[in-house]
Amino acid sequence: MKIITLSRQFGSGGRELGKRMADILGFDYYDREIISAIAKNKGLDESYVEKQLERPLWQTVPLTYGHSFANIMAVTQKTDLMIEEKKVIENIATLGRDFIIVGRCADVYLSEYNPFNIFVCADMRARIKRCISYEGENANKLSEKAIEHNIKKIDKNRAELRSLVADTKWSDACAYHLCVNTTDRNIKDLAVAVCDFAEKWFAKS
Amino acid sequence: MKIITLSRQFGSGGRELGKRMADILGFDYYDREIISAIAKNKGLDESYVEKQLERPLWQTVPLTYGHSFANIMAVTQKTDLMIEEKKVIENIATLGRDFIIVGRCADVYLSEYNPFNIFVCADMRARIKRCISYEGENANKLSEKAIEHNIKKIDKNRAELRSLVADTKWSDACAYHLCVNTTDRNIKDLAVAVCDFAEKWFAKS
Repeated sequence: MKIITLSRQFGSGGRELGKRMADILGFDYYDREIISAIAKNKGLDESYVEKQLERPLWQTVPLTYGHSFANIMAVTQKTDLMIEEKKVIENIATLGRDFIIVGRCADVYLSEYNPFNIFVCADMRARIKRCISYEGENANKLSEKAIEHNIKKIDKNRAELRSLVADTKWSDACAYHLCVNTTDRNIKDLAVAVCDFAEKWFAKS
Repeated sequence: MKIITLSRQFGSGGRELGKRMADILGFDYYDREIISAIAKNKGLDESYVEKQLERPLWQTVPLTYGHSFANIMAVTQKTDLMIEEKKVIENIATLGRDFIIVGRCADVYLSEYNPFNIFVCADMRARIKRCISYEGENANKLSEKAIEHNIKKIDKNRAELRSLVADTKWSDACAYHLCVNTTDRNIKDLAVAVCDFAEKWFAKS
């Protein structure tokens, strides 16, 4: 079984790269499917699960932290969702099929399967541009400054969430097998190049 | 003209990867040649030039820093060597030939030529192992702990030297186009995979 995990900076085109790679390689593809599975297993709303899992732990607890029942419940539920996320990801691996999974610290959870771990990044300028192009007709809703603020916030949360489960640092080159910069590059072309690299990687594993 | 710059963690096999890539692609290869050229241009000893350029700036100046003539001379000469290094690297690009250059912040100095910038890294365990295998019969001279200490010291110096000339961080994935992890991999196989990736990168530039 071949597993490719893909971590990415927000706006780097990592999700598109992962989807295109899955199409080229004929691998199963997992991204939002994880959220759906957690929501289903826990009987919760998908958007609620997504919001909870993307928040850093400290945001779950109000600043006026006390031993109130509500606060303990909030932390417990967040932890509970993270454990469920880990289970859902581990369950995918038990299917024995080749797959690509985007985000969600899957490189850490699946380490025993020796996945090929990719990190996708890009310059801030390129990421803002990509966010605007992906937004399409909604593009004008946010200023570039607001988009940059969002990108930084989301990436900070991703880095913090990773630090809870990994001993390597999010976005540090050494934490992955291959890091690819998409600045000013066509994701379609990059997908071909990264797939070729991945095939050589697996052939020599 | 195609330029590949290769930055690397000490012991990651980056130099071997660069040499093999140059052989595969038929590119000129620059590494220690830079030191030789600086030494020749400045009428200095190669080993002296190498030592000076690998030291962080603060080590050039004694802790008992004062406005003594000797201290000012030391900083001046270090700066002078760094300027000469930049000149030597820029001169290579004026030859108009495809080349690979290892280390020496060449990715920063040659940015106007749009080089393909690679970073090579590996786990500490793998780097210690590689250092021992490269050392061959001298392998038993240093303990693993001493090798690890050396690796950390050299990498810290590289990071510090880069911070003097670049606004991106050494070893941060986003500072390069491609980062490759050599842990438990055969450099010969990796060289083929990275060359294929590089060729696709240049074809779409």
